[in-house]
Amino acid sequence: MISVLLVGKGNVATHLYNAFLNAENITVTQISSRNLNTIPVAAITIIAVSDDAIALVSSKIKNALVVHTSGACKMSELKNTNKKGVFYMLQTFSKEKEVDFSEVPFCIEAADEKDRKLLEKVAKTIGKKVYTINSEQRKAIHIAAVFVNNFTNHLYKIGKDLCKEHKIPFEVLHPLIKETASKIEILSPEKSQTGPAIRNDKKTIKKHFDLLNKSQQKIYKVLTKSIQNGN
Amino acid sequence: MISVLLVGKGNVATHLYNAFLNAENITVTQISSRNLNTIPVAAITIIAVSDDAIALVSSKIKNALVVHTSGACKMSELKNTNKKGVFYMLQTFSKEKEVDFSEVPFCIEAADEKDRKLLEKVAKTIGKKVYTINSEQRKAIHIAAVFVNNFTNHLYKIGKDLCKEHKIPFEVLHPLIKETASKIEILSPEKSQTGPAIRNDKKTIKKHFDLLNKSQQKIYKVLTKSIQNGN
Repeated sequence: MISVLLVGKGNVATHLYNAFLNAENITVTQISSRNLNTIPVAAITIIAVSDDAIALVSSKIKNALVVHTSGACKMSELKNTNKKGVFYMLQTFSKEKEVDFSEVPFCIEAADEKDRKLLEKVAKTIGKKVYTINSEQRKAIHIAAVFVNNFTNHLYKIGKDLCKEHKIPFEVLHPLIKETASKIEILSPEKSQTGPAIRNDKKTIKKHFDLLNKSQQKIYKVLTKSIQNGN
Repeated sequence: MISVLLVGKGNVATHLYNAFLNAENITVTQISSRNLNTIPVAAITIIAVSDDAIALVSSKIKNALVVHTSGACKMSELKNTNKKGVFYMLQTFSKEKEVDFSEVPFCIEAADEKDRKLLEKVAKTIGKKVYTINSEQRKAIHIAAVFVNNFTNHLYKIGKDLCKEHKIPFEVLHPLIKETASKIEILSPEKSQTGPAIRNDKKTIKKHFDLLNKSQQKIYKVLTKSIQNGN
């Protein structure tokens, strides 16, 4: 049995806690980061708190191996005195939606190979996809995630706004959104690019431009240019 | 039986032709737009050619009802002398990938209600989702499609570039891309927005910025600002 202590009460901590409850060979405890007076002993302590709180929370934990779950923070931002590591799950967690951990990529890091193997073992009790990723790579993944998740989601929002303005149900765009996302598994995004930008169809680009508000125009312009320049 | 003539040999025409071959109560013929000397008679003639060729090709067709499949063109761009309509399928068609027409939204338009009903009937022989959409609305849908398909696909490309640069397999981003896309069906894009922009996490934004090339920085900046302004 491997003992896991989860520190934090947010979406990530709670989804993880529920997954570990059903995992074999894992005993799991969850505590709030506001309640660090008596910290249970555990083989792995997973700190799932906001990035700003990682240093302070980790500094109070004396357990053997302490890891954080942040995409943006280096392993060295942990301030515990024992072993350190990272247990980053590359997925968007909402309170409202269940997480299928078999589909979540676990990006793990540890200074020590023995610890890395332990993190891998623990990840595999709830998931399938485990990657060993160092702090520099994780930073790049985190930025890439901003592009393919936060920014993409904002493009969906603009699509929705345009539909609303013209009294079109947003659901008309859902199949296209899903198809665009699922296409990446069989065709690279460069190869599957279509539309007026890549065709340099100036007439259509001009027509589109005239129908957009100032902010949408800026986005349209910068993305069209980037597609045309291939960068 | 309803007779359908397809004019064009591109992706849209070919996928449609194959779908109609398996449809009940439809007889279908396909001809190239370069071969307009002898045009078969048909109840519905679907012109699936490039936007620029619609006027010329349609001007040569004497059949009863002529429709185009373009998202960007008005119905009035058809230059045939009989009835006109639009049969726009809102999906991205690739040669390499089969199309599930039951998932494709058919956006139809006709000057005449009888023709609109005929187009609806024909659409339902191969699909399920049929919307009556006028030319102004279709233009808005087409722009929205550029945002959620072409631009989104370009953000995937940037995600892939960042992965490649840092020796990370792009597949690590696939689950996040798919989850972001499937989330829209249960949560609006405004509500599901997360990340440094919406949190106004200046420290992380600065860190990210320093790791990007000039073109990526421009995109990062304009999208971050738009997320923060909610427009």
